[in-house]
Amino acid sequence: MISPRRAPGGFPVVGIIGGGQLARMCQPPAVNLALTLHVLSESPDAAAALVVPSAPVGSHLDVGQVLAFARDCDVVTFDHEHVPAEVLQALVGAGVPVHPKPEALLFAQDKLAMRERLTDLGVPCPAWVPVHDAAELAAFGDLHGWPVVLKTPRGGYDGKGVRVVSSVQEAADWLAHGEVLLAEECVPFTRELAVLAARSPSGQAAVWPTVQTVQTNGICTEVLAPAPQLDPVLAAKISQTALLLAGELDITGVFAVEIFEIAGKAGTAPSYVVNELAMRPHNSGHWTIDGSVTSQFEQHLRAVLDLPLGEVSARAPWTVMGNVLGGDYDELYPTYRHLLARDPGLKVHLYGKGVRPGRKIGHVNVYGDDLDALRVRARHAADYLEGTVTE
Amino acid sequence: MISPRRAPGGFPVVGIIGGGQLARMCQPPAVNLALTLHVLSESPDAAAALVVPSAPVGSHLDVGQVLAFARDCDVVTFDHEHVPAEVLQALVGAGVPVHPKPEALLFAQDKLAMRERLTDLGVPCPAWVPVHDAAELAAFGDLHGWPVVLKTPRGGYDGKGVRVVSSVQEAADWLAHGEVLLAEECVPFTRELAVLAARSPSGQAAVWPTVQTVQTNGICTEVLAPAPQLDPVLAAKISQTALLLAGELDITGVFAVEIFEIAGKAGTAPSYVVNELAMRPHNSGHWTIDGSVTSQFEQHLRAVLDLPLGEVSARAPWTVMGNVLGGDYDELYPTYRHLLARDPGLKVHLYGKGVRPGRKIGHVNVYGDDLDALRVRARHAADYLEGTVTE
Repeated sequence: MISPRRAPGGFPVVGIIGGGQLARMCQPPAVNLALTLHVLSESPDAAAALVVPSAPVGSHLDVGQVLAFARDCDVVTFDHEHVPAEVLQALVGAGVPVHPKPEALLFAQDKLAMRERLTDLGVPCPAWVPVHDAAELAAFGDLHGWPVVLKTPRGGYDGKGVRVVSSVQEAADWLAHGEVLLAEECVPFTRELAVLAARSPSGQAAVWPTVQTVQTNGICTEVLAPAPQLDPVLAAKISQTALLLAGELDITGVFAVEIFEIAGKAGTAPSYVVNELAMRPHNSGHWTIDGSVTSQFEQHLRAVLDLPLGEVSARAPWTVMGNVLGGDYDELYPTYRHLLARDPGLKVHLYGKGVRPGRKIGHVNVYGDDLDALRVRARHAADYLEGTVTE
Repeated sequence: MISPRRAPGGFPVVGIIGGGQLARMCQPPAVNLALTLHVLSESPDAAAALVVPSAPVGSHLDVGQVLAFARDCDVVTFDHEHVPAEVLQALVGAGVPVHPKPEALLFAQDKLAMRERLTDLGVPCPAWVPVHDAAELAAFGDLHGWPVVLKTPRGGYDGKGVRVVSSVQEAADWLAHGEVLLAEECVPFTRELAVLAARSPSGQAAVWPTVQTVQTNGICTEVLAPAPQLDPVLAAKISQTALLLAGELDITGVFAVEIFEIAGKAGTAPSYVVNELAMRPHNSGHWTIDGSVTSQFEQHLRAVLDLPLGEVSARAPWTVMGNVLGGDYDELYPTYRHLLARDPGLKVHLYGKGVRPGRKIGHVNVYGDDLDALRVRARHAADYLEGTVTE
């Protein structure tokens, strides 16, 4: 197995399980900070393997491979949340520092465990119930109204872990598996928000400004940082919730909380419920690469190494992130060349991935004073790279 | 030889001859832009080789090795200016795009050629003369005053290419070599400035704001961006000079012009002369990594690939760069950990190099509104990492 080469002077090696774009985007801050990455990669041409010298190919499902990989690391962290509990326990058993810890990671791996814990902590959630059969689903729908959001607590069926059902009949195939499901009320939200935070093993924590996320066909396509016209009291509550979760769940590293904002009735203040929890750098935090003093990737490296955290303030009044999805043609470079000419202030981040329709292949950031103009620039750039606009 | 692995979609490979910190600092923007670096490195633990997957070890002096290396590159550029003319010509002869071109690189390799060309172009220089013997040096010193700055046009003797001599006797050892030297008047400058610019093969050019550089014992220790209280007419002249040189010398890539500012007499405007020319990203431009929309390393990659250049405006009213020199102890990581705790807004850039007293091992950037406070922060951080202050 390829061994990582450390910088002299006592600098550590950070192991990352998974070679996707999140691991890839840790490489620029690792270069700056003289940290060495060691990536357990799915293939030699995975996003991170293209840019990290030490990226052995191996499986996150194989205890032996993961343990061998970890022998060269001072700490192990993750590109994704799919490492099984038994592999995580083997790492911990072997004395490898793992961040986030398996006990915290559970709340991103198991949505039912997450709902139980958040409800215990008094964190606002949509109404929810574990559903074992048709009768329980019918009772929940009749009480909270249809449609109902149905989720598989872990993974999913046919690649899907969430669906909206208007009747028990529509859920028949999932119910037929005989496994517990999570039913949630369909929240009448006005918009989606996300809060990104980091916590170190020593307990230091930092929260970035809350952002607005815009979803198109279930994929995050745009992030506005900070969330425009967010009620300051609500903003403070959301930041406090992130810090509460960081401490109570003993989270280490960067994590994100996806949130639904709900309008107040008749002049009352808006409120929120937590939608999802992600225990890693997150798409809603890509704006921080160009928009914050410390990016989420630099912060994640600092946090898992128990280095002091960096400043999280915004560098511009507004930063807008646009996700770039794969389109119909795969020769991206000529398109990108034209785009750079059109907008010299555009910050392009591509993941070195082959184009497939709908696949996240990169993102763009723009920042400045005029939010509307920034949104137009980010949207155009993403659409142009996707091929849905041609001028 | 290790082959570079390109990102799919038609993205190119940029070859860099030399694996020092300038090559290393090209890796973060290469990751963002999905460009692949291929580095001909001095050793497997050179600064760039630690962070670039494709960094074969080879010599820039060996035509065969350089040609073999270049076969995998779409363009070849440099970490340093020491590639011999015959190696450059062999690359050009083999049809490899080389940027900067040998004809332009000459003006950074040969100080006498630079002085001749700049004087022809009407660019202000110190009084200068080629010196072949003691009589010529004596005549120059008697005309322009002693001491005289004496330079070897190429390379140097005993690792030194510049010295200040107060008499012909002090220059006896250099004169004894029988090779032409460059004598320059000792300019009574008030401070040192530098201007950084980029030009692409298509002829697009961009100039960053002029900065002030502070030298200590002949090493650049601090850069203030932009140069405080710079006369706006002088600033415009300096920018125009950079653009003139870019076009007239047919420079491609990023380059820097080191400048002496000279006070105006009796209320007249200040003036300047050009001190040196560097045909590559430059220490005086490290502030751009955190302080400008486009860093000099991103811009250099764009320029040598003939991609459109990025915006060069400053992101904050002031950015201060402090060079970190090696001190007496080599366990840098604990020191660095304390420093990150002291200043969460500090941007640390380390080169992965072993500590040797006086060696450039990294730099720090800080930015904001209060120049004096920023200077204190940058100075402290650099001194703390060097070990000359301990709290």
